[in-house]
Amino acid sequence: MTTLAILGGTGHEGSGLGLRWAKAGHTVLIGSRTAEKAQAAAAELNAKLGADSVRGLDNLSAAQQGEVIVLTVPYSAHAATIESVRDAVQGKIFVDVTVPLVPPKVSRVQMPAAGSASQEAQNLLGPNVRVVTAFQSISAEHLKDSGHPIDCDVLVCGDDKEAKAVVIALAKDAGMQAWDAGPLANAVIPEGLTSVLIGLNIRYKVKSSGIKITGINS
Amino acid sequence: MTTLAILGGTGHEGSGLGLRWAKAGHTVLIGSRTAEKAQAAAAELNAKLGADSVRGLDNLSAAQQGEVIVLTVPYSAHAATIESVRDAVQGKIFVDVTVPLVPPKVSRVQMPAAGSASQEAQNLLGPNVRVVTAFQSISAEHLKDSGHPIDCDVLVCGDDKEAKAVVIALAKDAGMQAWDAGPLANAVIPEGLTSVLIGLNIRYKVKSSGIKITGINS
Repeated sequence: MTTLAILGGTGHEGSGLGLRWAKAGHTVLIGSRTAEKAQAAAAELNAKLGADSVRGLDNLSAAQQGEVIVLTVPYSAHAATIESVRDAVQGKIFVDVTVPLVPPKVSRVQMPAAGSASQEAQNLLGPNVRVVTAFQSISAEHLKDSGHPIDCDVLVCGDDKEAKAVVIALAKDAGMQAWDAGPLANAVIPEGLTSVLIGLNIRYKVKSSGIKITGINS
Repeated sequence: MTTLAILGGTGHEGSGLGLRWAKAGHTVLIGSRTAEKAQAAAAELNAKLGADSVRGLDNLSAAQQGEVIVLTVPYSAHAATIESVRDAVQGKIFVDVTVPLVPPKVSRVQMPAAGSASQEAQNLLGPNVRVVTAFQSISAEHLKDSGHPIDCDVLVCGDDKEAKAVVIALAKDAGMQAWDAGPLANAVIPEGLTSVLIGLNIRYKVKSSGIKITGINS
């Protein structure tokens, strides 16, 4: 079992992942800008779990104590949050869930100059952090109901095979099928796909469109 | 029924689409650099169809006679083919199926400076051509067996809604579910997804992985 630090974990996406991972037996640390906000979110998750297995901390403390770090902040807080934990996450696996949405046109793919948010994270963190991109397209609608199977696959990109295998196993623990989708240079696809799915939700009047990979026996 | 000109239609992708569209009752013109090569490919398709409904022409003649133009050339021939038919396709719908693969790393997403092959096509053709991106991720394995249902959806991007609706209907005629995936700026997703699927084919030892959209009743 792994100690997972979810930075920005008070949001829907981070809380949903934390709930599922705590249920699977992992130690979950919810991080936020203030410890108080994180503690409140942790208390809510513990109430749902009927247990006392989730803790709330400020982002830096969570990053220091976590073995695997998961970043689920809005893109506007992406660079600043990464810089605030850079030293604490050296040598660790860093899962970037951030989607570089540019309001108001959130259904239009608009990547940062680095190519994707995850490549930007890798540039900011340096070569000793194993950045992996994953979980962008999983709707918080799906995650919050932890008994519910998720009809959306996870594309996992990164330059370190072992780190990707860890993340693929974590996805499975949270009830999702995940696939090794290639190097971090491919992160534009899972990140940008999220904008495409937001557009499908609007155009086809649904709440949580997703994708499944076909043609591979899982 | 529409007259469809498939430029570079002697390849597996173009022939597979042509076969399915001819079966659905459309008039199919196979284009190639030389009329002779196109006529040979058309004869093969007619033999499969047991009919005489596909014609082979040089690319320019096909582009002149077609109502909807479909480009299925390797990326190395993309710009030159587009320039050779630019005048002939003004005012028409131009479906770009090209994937900007950069050998030898074809499983790595590597987009041209314009953002995608389809945006490059739009820049080369000018604003009076309605460029639509579609069909990149459909494996030729699937297409060639025209009785076979295709377990892969088509993401359709473009800046003209009416043109996208025409292409979504053409996908349906060829046995595929297609979705309006937003503006042409989103073309990086269907194009780049092809590299991701090529990587999945290699890593998971299959021939034709694909994607299906979930969460929308079709």
